[in-house]
Parts: sequence; structure tokens; C-alpha cells
Amino acid sequence: MATGALPSRSQVETIVRQVVTARLAGTRTGPPVLAVHASARHMHVSREDLDRLFGPGYELTVDRPLHQPGNFAAKETVTLIGPRSRLISNLRILGPLRSRSQIELAFTDAVSLGYDDVPIRLSGNLDGTPGALVMGPHGVLELGEGVIRAAMHAHMSPADAAHYGVRQGDLMKLRVGGDAATTFERVHVRIDPSSRLDVHMDTDEANACGLAHARQIELFK
Amino acid sequence: MATGALPSRSQVETIVRQVVTARLAGTRTGPPVLAVHASARHMHVSREDLDRLFGPGYELTVDRPLHQPGNFAAKETVTLIGPRSRLISNLRILGPLRSRSQIELAFTDAVSLGYDDVPIRLSGNLDGTPGALVMGPHGVLELGEGVIRAAMHAHMSPADAAHYGVRQGDLMKLRVGGDAATTFERVHVRIDPSSRLDVHMDTDEANACGLAHARQIELFK
Repeated sequence: MATGALPSRSQVETIVRQVVTARLAGTRTGPPVLAVHASARHMHVSREDLDRLFGPGYELTVDRPLHQPGNFAAKETVTLIGPRSRLISNLRILGPLRSRSQIELAFTDAVSLGYDDVPIRLSGNLDGTPGALVMGPHGVLELGEGVIRAAMHAHMSPADAAHYGVRQGDLMKLRVGGDAATTFERVHVRIDPSSRLDVHMDTDEANACGLAHARQIELFK
Repeated sequence: MATGALPSRSQVETIVRQVVTARLAGTRTGPPVLAVHASARHMHVSREDLDRLFGPGYELTVDRPLHQPGNFAAKETVTLIGPRSRLISNLRILGPLRSRSQIELAFTDAVSLGYDDVPIRLSGNLDGTPGALVMGPHGVLELGEGVIRAAMHAHMSPADAAHYGVRQGDLMKLRVGGDAATTFERVHVRIDPSSRLDVHMDTDEANACGLAHARQIELFK
């Protein structure tokens, strides 16, 4: 029955698994410091859905803070049931709570769950996306929609945006050098005063470009 | 125990799962017709190792011919046991037999098997690569080395090579357009008179660039 073929625990547990920091300059007057993170599959959850999954009034427990201030990997995980009753256990919840629940999968995850397709979307843009059944210790949540493959995006502050000469929603390119050198052409710019400069990609993208061994990472228009 | 989270049968069984053919021109005097195939994880096997796995003198059964003339997906599969006793069942064997056994995994597969790393290599370049335990119906094979992540490569005829102005071992770029537009920068040129023009990538790469929905595929120097 090959239960050993499940994704590795480290893969599931480590939301930010591969980190490559390209130190382009040390001071804030020079180019900003670029970080690239691979996000393993995970779930964002609403107050209402957390109540259903973990019980009324339940609060998430911080397991590990993430790169973006205020964001964290929670200790709590759920079981995700896809089409044709395939499932992934130990799907990590990321905090804080959001207004709407959302599940972010790499396409490899989606295929293994039995989805024929999962659209590439920016976070929160969930209309018309597939749903899933989610099991928590308190109850089962029938999510009508909310399963996406997250579009690659770059969090940045207004100062970073000014440095790159980009605006909210612009597309940038990310080149990851190395043995599997790859240029991703659609990195969505997301500007927020609280953000640290940080490109988020999924595990397929990170594995395709060999992010863990990458050299010469560059973000550009 | 979540056996449903195993990779989908279609993923395992379909070696060439996603095919995108960019018809650049209809005639052989114009640009050649470019095909791009995603190779799911698989194994190439030597005569000696096939004997050990399936019994002395065993012959592979053709399940499906592949795009390259003479190559085929066999009906035979094996179970692959990685480090820390994690395993993948139904690993497809590709024929014909080779002088040396070789296992090609996407990096996501390698992680799920418990490998810390698997090097990116051209087919046959196996020195110093990790090994694995392989189980067949007749016996178990202890493969000392041979587990690789296949470097992206373009099979082509001498006429195709002349069209592109490339030589054996050159690197080309492959741009895959669409919602996850990506340019892969290290596509190794492999020229053989019997070859049809055909880029091979693994499932991580295909999933990262959204090959199934790709538009405007271009191979260039």
C-alpha cells in the first residue's frame, strides 16, 4: 500500500523550505535584499471555517513565524480530500485568519489529489475555482471553491517598488541561475508598507529551477 | 494511512502525459515541428538487472510506443525504495534495454522518497549519483548508483540541428508561454539521425510552466 510514498514529513511541515537570499547590497540606499521562498502546499482559513474544523472559538497556535511580518505556520493541520476520494494528510494551516478560506497547491499536488486542473490565481481571487473536502479534528468542511495554484508573486514595500520602478499588479521576471537555470516571466507585484521583499513560488517551481542550489537570483522588469 | 494520496495512476502510467505541439510550419523546408513531452518518473534497465528483477531471460512487453522511434513504455513496473525506507510503487520501465540501469525522478519525487538531493544529469552520466533499492516480481536489485534528475534536453536530427545552427551538446533555451510563462535556459542538444525533434522535461518542470495549457512554445539558441 506504499504509505511510505507519501510526501515527506519535512516537505509537509516546512512551509518555507528552501530559502535563498541574494545579498545584492548591504544598505538600504542600494538595491534591496531579495529573498525567494518556496511555499509548500497549505491552507488559509476563515474564522467560520476554523470553528467548523477545530471547534467554536478555536485559536491557531504559532508553530513558526514566516518571512512576512505577522504571518506564521500554525501547528494545526487538516486532511484534504480531493476529487475521486484521494487525499493529502497533514496539510498545514498558515495564519493569521483570513476573510475567506483558501488552499494553495502545487500542480503536482493537485494531480496527485485527482484534480484535472487547478487554476493559477492570485491569493483571494477564488471565484470559479475548484472545491475540496477538508477534515479537521472537530468536523468536516465542504469548501465549495478555494483551491488554487498560487500565481508567483513578489511582496515588497513601496520603497522596494520605487527601486524597481514597478506598481501594484505589475509583472516582473525572476531569473534563477544554476544547473537548471530558469526565468519565470510572470511574477506579480504586491506592494504593502508592511512587506519585506520576498518572492513566493510553489514547490513545483522551486524544484524545477533547483532553487535550493540556485546561484545568481535576479528580479527585474 | 492515506494511500489515496499516492500519485495518480494516470501520472504513473502515462510516461508522456502532456504533449504540446507547436506547428511552426507544415513543410520540412520551413522550421521543424517542435514537440515537448513531460516524462513522468521512470526506470531504464540493463539486461542483467532485468534478469534479477523479473527472472533470467525475461523480455519487456510494449505497453505504448514513445515519440522517439524504437522507445516504448513497458507494461512492467517496479517498486522503488529510497532512503529512510520510503517507497514509490508502480515505477514504469521504459524500453529498450540499456547498458546500465538508470532511474529518472522529478525532484518532487526525490523529496517524497527521502533523498536529500538528486543531481541533474544527462542520461547515462551516472557516476557518483545516489542509488536505490528496486523490487521486481522475481527479486530485489540493489542499485549502487543511477538515480538522477534528467537534465532537460532536445532530441533532434542533424537536419533539425542545422536549422537551429546548433551542435551536439550545445545548450538552447525553451520558452513556454501562458499563465505561468517560463524560459528554461539549459536545454541540452542531443543529435541523432533517428531522432524526431522533441524536448523532454520532467513533471516538475512541466507543472511549473503549465505545459498542458501552454501557448507559444519556442526553442532557440
